[in-house]
Amino acid sequence: MIKATSIILSGILFITIGCKNSNEQFTNNKQDSEKTDPLPSWNEGETKTAIIGFVTAATNDESENFIKISDRIATFDNDGNLWSEQPAYFQLFFAMDRVKLLAPEHPEWKTKQPFKAVLEDDLATLATFGEHGILELVMATHANLTTDEFEDVVKKWLTTARHPRFNRPYTELVYQPMLELLNYLRENNFKTFIVSGGGIEFMRPWVEEVYGIPRDQVVGSSIKTEFVFKNGNPVIMRLPEIDFIDDKEGKPLGINKFIGRKPVFASGNSDGDLPMLQWTASGEGLRFMLYLHHTDSIREWAYDRESHIGRLDKGLDEATEKGWTVINMKEDWKVIYPFELEK
Amino acid sequence: MIKATSIILSGILFITIGCKNSNEQFTNNKQDSEKTDPLPSWNEGETKTAIIGFVTAATNDESENFIKISDRIATFDNDGNLWSEQPAYFQLFFAMDRVKLLAPEHPEWKTKQPFKAVLEDDLATLATFGEHGILELVMATHANLTTDEFEDVVKKWLTTARHPRFNRPYTELVYQPMLELLNYLRENNFKTFIVSGGGIEFMRPWVEEVYGIPRDQVVGSSIKTEFVFKNGNPVIMRLPEIDFIDDKEGKPLGINKFIGRKPVFASGNSDGDLPMLQWTASGEGLRFMLYLHHTDSIREWAYDRESHIGRLDKGLDEATEKGWTVINMKEDWKVIYPFELEK
Repeated sequence: MIKATSIILSGILFITIGCKNSNEQFTNNKQDSEKTDPLPSWNEGETKTAIIGFVTAATNDESENFIKISDRIATFDNDGNLWSEQPAYFQLFFAMDRVKLLAPEHPEWKTKQPFKAVLEDDLATLATFGEHGILELVMATHANLTTDEFEDVVKKWLTTARHPRFNRPYTELVYQPMLELLNYLRENNFKTFIVSGGGIEFMRPWVEEVYGIPRDQVVGSSIKTEFVFKNGNPVIMRLPEIDFIDDKEGKPLGINKFIGRKPVFASGNSDGDLPMLQWTASGEGLRFMLYLHHTDSIREWAYDRESHIGRLDKGLDEATEKGWTVINMKEDWKVIYPFELEK
Repeated sequence: MIKATSIILSGILFITIGCKNSNEQFTNNKQDSEKTDPLPSWNEGETKTAIIGFVTAATNDESENFIKISDRIATFDNDGNLWSEQPAYFQLFFAMDRVKLLAPEHPEWKTKQPFKAVLEDDLATLATFGEHGILELVMATHANLTTDEFEDVVKKWLTTARHPRFNRPYTELVYQPMLELLNYLRENNFKTFIVSGGGIEFMRPWVEEVYGIPRDQVVGSSIKTEFVFKNGNPVIMRLPEIDFIDDKEGKPLGINKFIGRKPVFASGNSDGDLPMLQWTASGEGLRFMLYLHHTDSIREWAYDRESHIGRLDKGLDEATEKGWTVINMKEDWKVIYPFELEK
C-alpha cells in the first residue's frame, strides 16, 4: 500500500502542478465537488437549474449535447455583469479621479467641458456630453503614458478609490454568484474570458486576482500604442487615439480576433451584449445565452429599458423570444457581493 | 488494493480531463519525464544546455531565478521558426493557389500585375513587387468571405497543396526540434503563444493540431472584419483592408494587445523578430532570447544577412552582443522535420 499511496500522492501533486498553468481552479476530489452545491449563492429555481443542466449535458460524453473541451469557450461581459456599473461605469470614476489629479497641469480644464463638469463633480452635466465626452476624458487621462506606468496608475487607484454608495474598493463590488459561476465553469474545463466594452488595460491589472481570469483571456476596448526606446529601453507608449471599441457589434469581432472560436456560453447584461449573444447562439450544438436583469433596487440597482447605463431593452425582448436564460437578480441571488458573506 | 487502484485510475482520468482545457500536453509521470531527454532531436551542446538550464532555473522555486507560473509566457515566431519559409512564405503559396482558383472570375488578372506573375508562376517577377504586391494578393484572396468560409478554404488547401521541394503537405514541414521545445516548455507550465507576421486566421485552423497551441494563443496579422446578418444568421465578413501587421515593432504591440504580459521566453529567426526579443529582454529577472540561424543548405536552407525572406542581420549582431542563444540549425539539430523520424 505504501507504493500505491505514493503514486496517488504524486498524482495529486502533478494535478496541482500541471493545472496551475492555465490559472484555472480545480477541486482535488471530483466526487466531493459533485456532492457540494457548485452555486451556493444562487437560490434554487429555473435559472440555477438551467445553468447546472447546461454544464451537466455539455460535460457528459455520452450525451448528444457533449461539448469537447477545446470548444468550451465562455465569455462574460464585465460592467454590470461581473461587477456593478452604477451610478456610473467604474472606469469613468477612474477617469474623473485622474482628471482631478492632472488638473494642475491643465488650468484650461477649469472652463473647458467635459473637464469642468468633472472638476465640479457634476455627473448630470457630464452625462449630457454622452459617449463623445467620455472618449475625450479617456484620451486625456489614459494616454501619453507607457503601458507600465498606466498599470501602476490603475493599481494605485484601486487601493485608494472608494465607491460612492458602498464606500468600498471597486473590486469588492463584484458579484459573488458570478464568481461562483466562473469557478463552476472552469471546474468543468470551460475556458473563461472577459469580453467588455471597458478598457483592456484598465481590467488586466486586477482581473486575474479578482476573477481568476488570466490577463491574456481579456478582450476589451483599446487605444493605439507605439513601440519606442526611452533612455535606451524599449517601452510601449499609449497614444490618444482609439484602436478598437469592444462593444455591440465589436464584441463578436473582438471574440473572433482575440479568441478565434465561437463561444458556447455567453453572459451579458445590456443591449451592448446582444451581438455577442446572437453570435454565440448561431453556432451548432448545445449553447447557453445568459442575461443578467438588474431587478434589485435595494441590494444593488434596478434598471433596464430606460437606463442610460447598461440599457437592456432589445436584449430582453430577444431573450424572451429565443428562450435564453435571464437572471432575475432580486429573486435568483442570495447575496450580491462577497462582503455580505462575512456578516 | 482494488480501492487504491480505482483511486489511482480516477486520478489519472481527472488529470486528463483537468488539463486538456488549456490544450497543454503533459506526461503522466513527472519522474519518468525528468529521466528522459526532453529534447531528443537536439544535439548535445551549448544551445541545448542553455535551454535546459533556463527551464531548470525558472522552475526551481528555491532559485533566485524562479519564475512564477502566471509569468511563464513563451512566444514563438512561426515562419522560418516553427515551420520553413522557403522558397517563399507558405501563405504566399496559398494566396497564389487562390489567385489561380479565382482567375476565371477575374479575366483582367491575365494582364494585371502582380496577378499576371502569379498566373505564370513567375516568382522572380512577383518578388519585384515587394511587400505591396503581396498585400495586393492577400486582399484579393483573403477577403470578401465570411470567417467560416475562409477557415474552410484554408483547411481544404492544406489537404491538397504540396510543397514544391519536398512534395509534402506544408504542415509536415514543421521543425521537430521546435515541437519538442514547445512540449518541454508546456510540461514546465509555460504558456506557449505564436506571434507571427502571418495571418492570424490563416494559422488558427491548423496550429492547435500541429503545434498543440490553442487558437486563442495565436497573435498574427489581420484584416478588418464586419458583423452582419446574412439570411437572418450572423456572420463575420472579412474586409479587404489591413487591420494590424504583426511584424517588427508590431510584435511587441501585438503581444501587449493580445497577451498583456511581457514574455520571459521569445523565439524568432529574423530581424522582424528583433523588437519582440528586445521587448522580452527588457523585463526584470530571468529570461531567454532565442534566435534560429538557418545554416543547413542540405537538409533545409542556409540564409541570413542577404536573404529577402527571413533576413537575419541586425538580429544576429544584437544576439552576439547581448549573449542571446543562437541555434545553429546544421549543428544543433539531429533532424529537421518529423517525417525524418519515420525512416
